Amino acid sequence: MTGTTSGKRLWDKSGDSASSLNKLIHEFTVGSDPEIDLNIIYWDILASAAHAKMLNNSKLLDDKDLAVLIPGLKKALNLVKKDEFTIPRELEDCHTALESYLTEECGDAGKRIHTGRSRNDQVLVAVRLYLRALIIDSVNGLTAVANLAFKRAESSLGIQIPGHTHFQHAMPASVGMWFSAIAEGAIELIREGLALSELVSINPLGVGSGFGAPLPIDRELTTKLLGFSKTQRNPINTQNSRGKYELSIVRYLSNISSWIEKYSYDLIIYNMQELRWVKIPKSFTTGSSIMPQKQNPDVLELLRGSASRVRASEFEIASIISKLPSHYHRDFQLTKEPLVKARNISLSTLSIFKQVLEGIDFDIIELEKSKSEELYVTYQAFRLVRQGMSFRDAYIETARLYTEGSINKKDLEQDFALIESSLISELASGKAELLQISNTISTKSAELNSLENLLS
Amino acid sequence: MTGTTSGKRLWDKSGDSASSLNKLIHEFTVGSDPEIDLNIIYWDILASAAHAKMLNNSKLLDDKDLAVLIPGLKKALNLVKKDEFTIPRELEDCHTALESYLTEECGDAGKRIHTGRSRNDQVLVAVRLYLRALIIDSVNGLTAVANLAFKRAESSLGIQIPGHTHFQHAMPASVGMWFSAIAEGAIELIREGLALSELVSINPLGVGSGFGAPLPIDRELTTKLLGFSKTQRNPINTQNSRGKYELSIVRYLSNISSWIEKYSYDLIIYNMQELRWVKIPKSFTTGSSIMPQKQNPDVLELLRGSASRVRASEFEIASIISKLPSHYHRDFQLTKEPLVKARNISLSTLSIFKQVLEGIDFDIIELEKSKSEELYVTYQAFRLVRQGMSFRDAYIETARLYTEGSINKKDLEQDFALIESSLISELASGKAELLQISNTISTKSAELNSLENLLS
Amino acid sequence: MTGTTSGKRLWDKSGDSASSLNKLIHEFTVGSDPEIDLNIIYWDILASAAHAKMLNNSKLLDDKDLAVLIPGLKKALNLVKKDEFTIPRELEDCHTALESYLTEECGDAGKRIHTGRSRNDQVLVAVRLYLRALIIDSVNGLTAVANLAFKRAESSLGIQIPGHTHFQHAMPASVGMWFSAIAEGAIELIREGLALSELVSINPLGVGSGFGAPLPIDRELTTKLLGFSKTQRNPINTQNSRGKYELSIVRYLSNISSWIEKYSYDLIIYNMQELRWVKIPKSFTTGSSIMPQKQNPDVLELLRGSASRVRASEFEIASIISKLPSHYHRDFQLTKEPLVKARNISLSTLSIFKQVLEGIDFDIIELEKSKSEELYVTYQAFRLVRQGMSFRDAYIETARLYTEGSINKKDLEQDFALIESSLISELASGKAELLQISNTISTKSAELNSLENLLS
Amino acid sequence: MTGTTSGKRLWDKSGDSASSLNKLIHEFTVGSDPEIDLNIIYWDILASAAHAKMLNNSKLLDDKDLAVLIPGLKKALNLVKKDEFTIPRELEDCHTALESYLTEECGDAGKRIHTGRSRNDQVLVAVRLYLRALIIDSVNGLTAVANLAFKRAESSLGIQIPGHTHFQHAMPASVGMWFSAIAEGAIELIREGLALSELVSINPLGVGSGFGAPLPIDRELTTKLLGFSKTQRNPINTQNSRGKYELSIVRYLSNISSWIEKYSYDLIIYNMQELRWVKIPKSFTTGSSIMPQKQNPDVLELLRGSASRVRASEFEIASIISKLPSHYHRDFQLTKEPLVKARNISLSTLSIFKQVLEGIDFDIIELEKSKSEELYVTYQAFRLVRQGMSFRDAYIETARLYTEGSINKKDLEQDFALIESSLISELASGKAELLQISNTISTKSAELNSLENLLS
Repeated sequence: MTGTTSGKRLWDKSGDSASSLNKLIHEFTVGSDPEIDLNIIYWDILASAAHAKMLNNSKLLDDKDLAVLIPGLKKALNLVKKDEFTIPRELEDCHTALESYLTEECGDAGKRIHTGRSRNDQVLVAVRLYLRALIIDSVNGLTAVANLAFKRAESSLGIQIPGHTHFQHAMPASVGMWFSAIAEGAIELIREGLALSELVSINPLGVGSGFGAPLPIDRELTTKLLGFSKTQRNPINTQNSRGKYELSIVRYLSNISSWIEKYSYDLIIYNMQELRWVKIPKSFTTGSSIMPQKQNPDVLELLRGSASRVRASEFEIASIISKLPSHYHRDFQLTKEPLVKARNISLSTLSIFKQVLEGIDFDIIELEKSKSEELYVTYQAFRLVRQGMSFRDAYIETARLYTEGSINKKDLEQDFALIESSLISELASGKAELLQISNTISTKSAELNSLENLLS
Repeated sequence: MTGTTSGKRLWDKSGDSASSLNKLIHEFTVGSDPEIDLNIIYWDILASAAHAKMLNNSKLLDDKDLAVLIPGLKKALNLVKKDEFTIPRELEDCHTALESYLTEECGDAGKRIHTGRSRNDQVLVAVRLYLRALIIDSVNGLTAVANLAFKRAESSLGIQIPGHTHFQHAMPASVGMWFSAIAEGAIELIREGLALSELVSINPLGVGSGFGAPLPIDRELTTKLLGFSKTQRNPINTQNSRGKYELSIVRYLSNISSWIEKYSYDLIIYNMQELRWVKIPKSFTTGSSIMPQKQNPDVLELLRGSASRVRASEFEIASIISKLPSHYHRDFQLTKEPLVKARNISLSTLSIFKQVLEGIDFDIIELEKSKSEELYVTYQAFRLVRQGMSFRDAYIETARLYTEGSINKKDLEQDFALIESSLISELASGKAELLQISNTISTKSAELNSLENLLS
Repeated sequence: MTGTTSGKRLWDKSGDSASSLNKLIHEFTVGSDPEIDLNIIYWDILASAAHAKMLNNSKLLDDKDLAVLIPGLKKALNLVKKDEFTIPRELEDCHTALESYLTEECGDAGKRIHTGRSRNDQVLVAVRLYLRALIIDSVNGLTAVANLAFKRAESSLGIQIPGHTHFQHAMPASVGMWFSAIAEGAIELIREGLALSELVSINPLGVGSGFGAPLPIDRELTTKLLGFSKTQRNPINTQNSRGKYELSIVRYLSNISSWIEKYSYDLIIYNMQELRWVKIPKSFTTGSSIMPQKQNPDVLELLRGSASRVRASEFEIASIISKLPSHYHRDFQLTKEPLVKARNISLSTLSIFKQVLEGIDFDIIELEKSKSEELYVTYQAFRLVRQGMSFRDAYIETARLYTEGSINKKDLEQDFALIESSLISELASGKAELLQISNTISTKSAELNSLENLLS
Repeated sequence: MTGTTSGKRLWDKSGDSASSLNKLIHEFTVGSDPEIDLNIIYWDILASAAHAKMLNNSKLLDDKDLAVLIPGLKKALNLVKKDEFTIPRELEDCHTALESYLTEECGDAGKRIHTGRSRNDQVLVAVRLYLRALIIDSVNGLTAVANLAFKRAESSLGIQIPGHTHFQHAMPASVGMWFSAIAEGAIELIREGLALSELVSINPLGVGSGFGAPLPIDRELTTKLLGFSKTQRNPINTQNSRGKYELSIVRYLSNISSWIEKYSYDLIIYNMQELRWVKIPKSFTTGSSIMPQKQNPDVLELLRGSASRVRASEFEIASIISKLPSHYHRDFQLTKEPLVKARNISLSTLSIFKQVLEGIDFDIIELEKSKSEELYVTYQAFRLVRQGMSFRDAYIETARLYTEGSINKKDLEQDFALIESSLISELASGKAELLQISNTISTKSAELNSLENLLS
């Protein structure tokens, strides 16, 4: 990237100089913004295009200024897409770097782009678009896992697996039921994602530093241009929502990671030598520096551990924002890093988790060996119920039979057929629901992608 | 309450005796369940009624058994409503106490109510109904605050207040803008609540201990009877969602508390002797044990502090569930206490917060005195923009004017009219939106209330 | 309790009346103080005695006033010890209740006890004494566990158990090594407790509301009377340390709970039907409402889950205090509840954990069966090393031997003797260290107990 | 760096190949280790030197092998000090990179360095030395702040400042009291750091993968060589302490950050236009992109916000480790990143905070103007007490005087002299204590520095 030779911060005035702010202090205040902002500049550019078009429509920007700004923004976007747009530390952040770039590329028009907006609402709108996009990425990742899990469930029909409660043998489950659980969990997460994407689809652009501007800004227009569902009307509330929606979405990412965490932990347990229910491909394991025989399921452990990293990001944002009264405070800058961290971890663990689910094999022979009599005791009680006994009496009678050793496992096992048949109808319903949701996702995804049209 | 003389835990079998479980251990495992469960027994009763009707429909329960169970459940509900249903510690929890009560009241029919269900899904469904109800309570509380805030905003039009950013004078805000911010924040929270109420409206009843039951359970029927939008199909996923929805809703309560926290902090600051922007009624303040002159805004401070208590409940649930692989573990029992705590704090702070907003008075004279020249500097820049100057040049020129002392505050103040006029249209839109949402809330509220019809 | 008929809050002045503070608001501001403060009033009384003696020594309190105050305080203490001292809600907290009690019991002398102190430093000193006492309780509980664990380690010598890493067979461990791990962990926690007890042994009494008092207060004297190691000198720093030491100690309690959490989780795993390494006495298990065969290790699961409750208290305190600038804010009141909760959970889990360690039995036959060849592979590498081969070459050579099936488990098992012999010396050192520490604990414990002499 | 051409992970065996571990999976498992480990390799090298010397002493390593290993380690250390040691991603971490480097530099001797140790205890010992060093760095930073704060307190004697409680005027404080509060807080933190440095000074090296090794390892010798106070004896407890001490120290760093957070928040408030008590040098402020007049105290806000980042690291480590039963799990790897992050933030904020305290100026004229009558009301009560009235009666009488307007501020102000004179003696005691502690720090610091002698 070039275009930063002008090298001025947005707030540099005549008389200010680079030296007026102590170097160390400058380093400290800039922090990781130049790196982090590479994650949101794409959205800052698109929001700037919408802002410019609105200014033009409101007669605050000439046609000829718009005519140079849009190509300038497009050029910047292309640099961003090629990873060639850099944000020099002396320019602090992507917003300054972009205005600086536009001023160099577009001359005086570049100095007009900031009319009626502030870095405050610029960050707000860029982050909000980033949030909308990451939800779409997440639900796409979840859809892929759900589809795979349904497929594996269907090909695992009939394979029983001991169902634990309290880590103790409880009742029979099945490999298909386990895979289908993952799929249904994914669908619930997708539905949550879609609901959230509606809630965050509120446009903050146009509130300036949180108090509006005495200019004929048409906020509904940018709402429409950027595909938001709604305008956030009140300037103070809008500014106060900084961090709040970031937190909501990071919690959502945390839900995704927690769901992966749980099933990864299952597999770590199922992979113990004492169970051997599941085989993890050698290419997914790592060795020990000291014990030559080890094949450790590090991937699963890191999936489990990663959930804590996302959870910490959730915590970090909450802690930063909870001490602040109304209006903008610089502390908000620090919410970007945990957001980006949480997103990147979440999406990468989603993709790794999918590979894991593809690669593992349940060991039918070991599973067959692991069926204990205990697992079927409750089925005995249900038989008595089907014969008319009250459940509580059946429970007591079955306990008696169990104590005297009269549980006939072989016979009771057959009753699992009723469970499995309900699994089959569950799979059908689940796949139908997923298909339906996928269409909604595609539409939302297309909407976001079409925002690049703002530059043409 | 009577009916507990049978005094047996659901898992007591012939041969088990009270003494087989060490007293101290019993106390430890029971914990606070008997107290906490008084918060959910209402829902357990209604879900039991739906379950009984379903069993009857599925020929697992005779008409005559149903005919005694429903009145028995109704009687229990009446006791609960009069705060007369007690849960003896020896019975562990509300589920056991209810079955015990029914067995005493309804004889053999009471022993049949547990057919095809487990305490696991019984807790799940009772808690889920509790969650649905608490969301309705929350959005009702939020609606009341929003209505009040709009009203106060309308009666505060034209009263300017310094707008801070970084705790520094930034640009003019207004008392109306501040109240309207609260209202719009409330509306966003209501919309979030309604979205969540849809997400949690999934029926877990019928998955037993998390592995289904080989009985002709009709889960769609209980879904319909209990007014759920959807059935949670997969038994493992359903059991694994224990704690997960509790966490989602407590996070929601935490959002409500955080919103109160922020505006309470504002008022604490506005009430400083150095500002005196707001007067807190004497009846809302407390004194000092040592300093006779003190009138402290303790209510506001406790509203602020309470947000941390809800946040801790959020954390507590997340920490409990994050270490658990699939299926039921007793740790889940511990998620009820923070849920109930968070709900009670949230609802009580909502009600106190509303009283605060009703009671405070902004001090027009002090506010007038507090208007600084700095606040209007940016308006000067916007004037230059309106005259055609590029914003960045206007910014630099205005800085120059400010330095040389040429900012005409009196004149610039008038431009606030543009801000205030946009506030007026904001209020209109906001009130319209709130009205529309209120209808949805009423419908949902009525739906929940109608569940008592299950007992007639 | 009597003595509260005067029924005035410390800040009630002529003209103030109960009705001036809205009932609901009063309820909200009082919160759970009357219940929670029953946990600290014991210390408030002792600190009040020290304060009175200091006032007397500084000529701020007559001999005859002191002569009635001390018996009054003693009487109050006796009520507290018999659980008969109550704190009426209208008096807000234990400090008011105590002054009110003393005024009734001792007349005018009661009105002099508050000279030169504020509720602020009264809470500070009472809580700090409470912290000192709870550390002693904790280290006593830890000592009991450590002694038991050493005993069980000694009686388990020679019993090998598979050592897992990554939940995979790694190298041989032993039951003795596991028990001794618990003991050494306890000793580290005791050492931490003793270090903390030194750090919190700083006297806050005498700083009033955080700004000192223009009176000849002799702070070194109360430091000495209350057995503190040091005076906290600066009034602002002292007030700012509210919550800070509470947090430190709750973190310490959290460390204790985390240590219990880990070993409880071990036992839950060891108790799985797939391992059967450990037997939990039936009196420690509970049953299922639906599955007649279940004997669930709920106690262990609740020990595990309880750690999250303590962790949440830690979080709660941190969240409350982190948003506050210097000086007293009412939010601090809310730090008492999580402190008391964390203490009570910690001490009760310590006692339950000890019972668990006493009650469990490792199953020698199952453990013998569980010895896999993999466990001894690394011992083969060490043999090659002892023969002079470099470790890395030995590692590769052993991997080759393992692949071709040439690991002689029977033979290699003998090398465990070297591990066990080092365990024996470990036990000797550990027990010696514990004995030495126990003396320090006894001294500290006696010091605290002797504070009651202030009342004679 | 060269020496990595051998390019093999510690667990690569004949037959393993880079391709056996899926690229994406490899990337995921390696994570940020290569970057993060640059923070601990210095300590890994020193611990390796101690390990080699011990092996030699135990006859497990020839003299001639030691004679090449020590220079090899020294060469590596020099590369590290010049930032020229790199850790290639294919080698996973610093431990592998170091062994690989030594093997290339020292031939067969390099393959012997891993005798009797595992990566597990290698990480443990390197991190523990890192912890010891960061405590020293922290207490040095704290000492510098304390010295400065005492100096500023001394030069601020006599400057009164309103003392707030509940953000309301309470009683007079002074600038000197505020600076001295910072100093005393620093001293408490230093004492905490020194206590912690003793608690973490326990040597984990020699427990291998957590189960010991059947080799004549002399653990007391490495304890002595590395300057640890004590050996961690039990292999399981030692491995289980992974993360635990990291958490303790990050909590300590969090205490430091919280202390900075509080005083930064003070300054943000004191800097409000409504107070103007303090002036922040222009070089410490930044501007706004839209408001030309702004000089924002971003540095202070980022100091405040940074505390939340450290707190999140604390949370992250606790969350990672709390779900793990005994023994090593790969999740532990993830504890290094938050540790390093917390350390770096803490030390940098300490240094920035010191600059802030150096740069700020309290505005004597504004402070004089800010003295309210309310501040001195309590002094009136104390006067009545000194005349013999009981405090509670004096309180009520003073309230009456205040209401009727009879508080003589001018006169009462003089009583502040008693407060200030106690501040003067506080400063003397504080400085003496700090001097004494500084000697201990110097000794500990020198001890750590002398560890480089292991390489000569």
